[in-house]
Amino acid sequence: MSIQKTHELVAIEHRALERWGQGDPSGYLEISAPDVVYFDPFVDYRIDGIEALGRYYEALRGTIHAENFEIIDPLVQEHGVMAVLTFNFRCRLASGAELRWNCTEVYRRQGAEWRLIQSHWSRTNPGSSAQ
Amino acid sequence: MSIQKTHELVAIEHRALERWGQGDPSGYLEISAPDVVYFDPFVDYRIDGIEALGRYYEALRGTIHAENFEIIDPLVQEHGVMAVLTFNFRCRLASGAELRWNCTEVYRRQGAEWRLIQSHWSRTNPGSSAQ
Repeated sequence: MSIQKTHELVAIEHRALERWGQGDPSGYLEISAPDVVYFDPFVDYRIDGIEALGRYYEALRGTIHAENFEIIDPLVQEHGVMAVLTFNFRCRLASGAELRWNCTEVYRRQGAEWRLIQSHWSRTNPGSSAQ
Repeated sequence: MSIQKTHELVAIEHRALERWGQGDPSGYLEISAPDVVYFDPFVDYRIDGIEALGRYYEALRGTIHAENFEIIDPLVQEHGVMAVLTFNFRCRLASGAELRWNCTEVYRRQGAEWRLIQSHWSRTNPGSSAQ
């Protein structure tokens, strides 16, 4: 299976992550569709729609400061108007902590633009058991 | 945003989960495409391709016994040949433990069939902090 570091979605995701790592969630909001849905390890239920996601992100604005990050082995599965970008992710926070994540981003074409319609972030192997 | 409990993908997922909960991972393998990719909380990196996923699943065969489970608020975003099914999930194991999950399944049409091309399972709010 080919790894596609050069797919345009990797660049789009990288730009949103750069802003995210500087405490600015607007990069993600600007590329999200109205019907975006969202999972991360800190919410009790899926977040549905850009208004709800915007409220969630606003509470995080200015709280996240990444020293550096890495999109690991990005893969794009593109068919018709949709594409799935998956990758592992590593980031080092200003506190020195290093975090590892799994990420699935689903994008949909709207004219010449890609818009995020589903975002799922989870911790890589946080140490829980399968049972 | 409408919740689509009756979409055919919810039934497909439910059937695969019923077999999974009886220790049989073949239900998922039978609906997976050759290029399926996979994340769960127990793997260190994304699993790429049905052969690698099959090896991973075989090691789990017979080890999982769910008393019951529930697909919570399934939502399908379908565009062209692809569809994203997202839901929260609750299951009670034979041990009595109750687990909650976030799930994103991406399906692609192949002729008259749907095939899973991306599967991402993570624990709902496992209690880690945002920083």
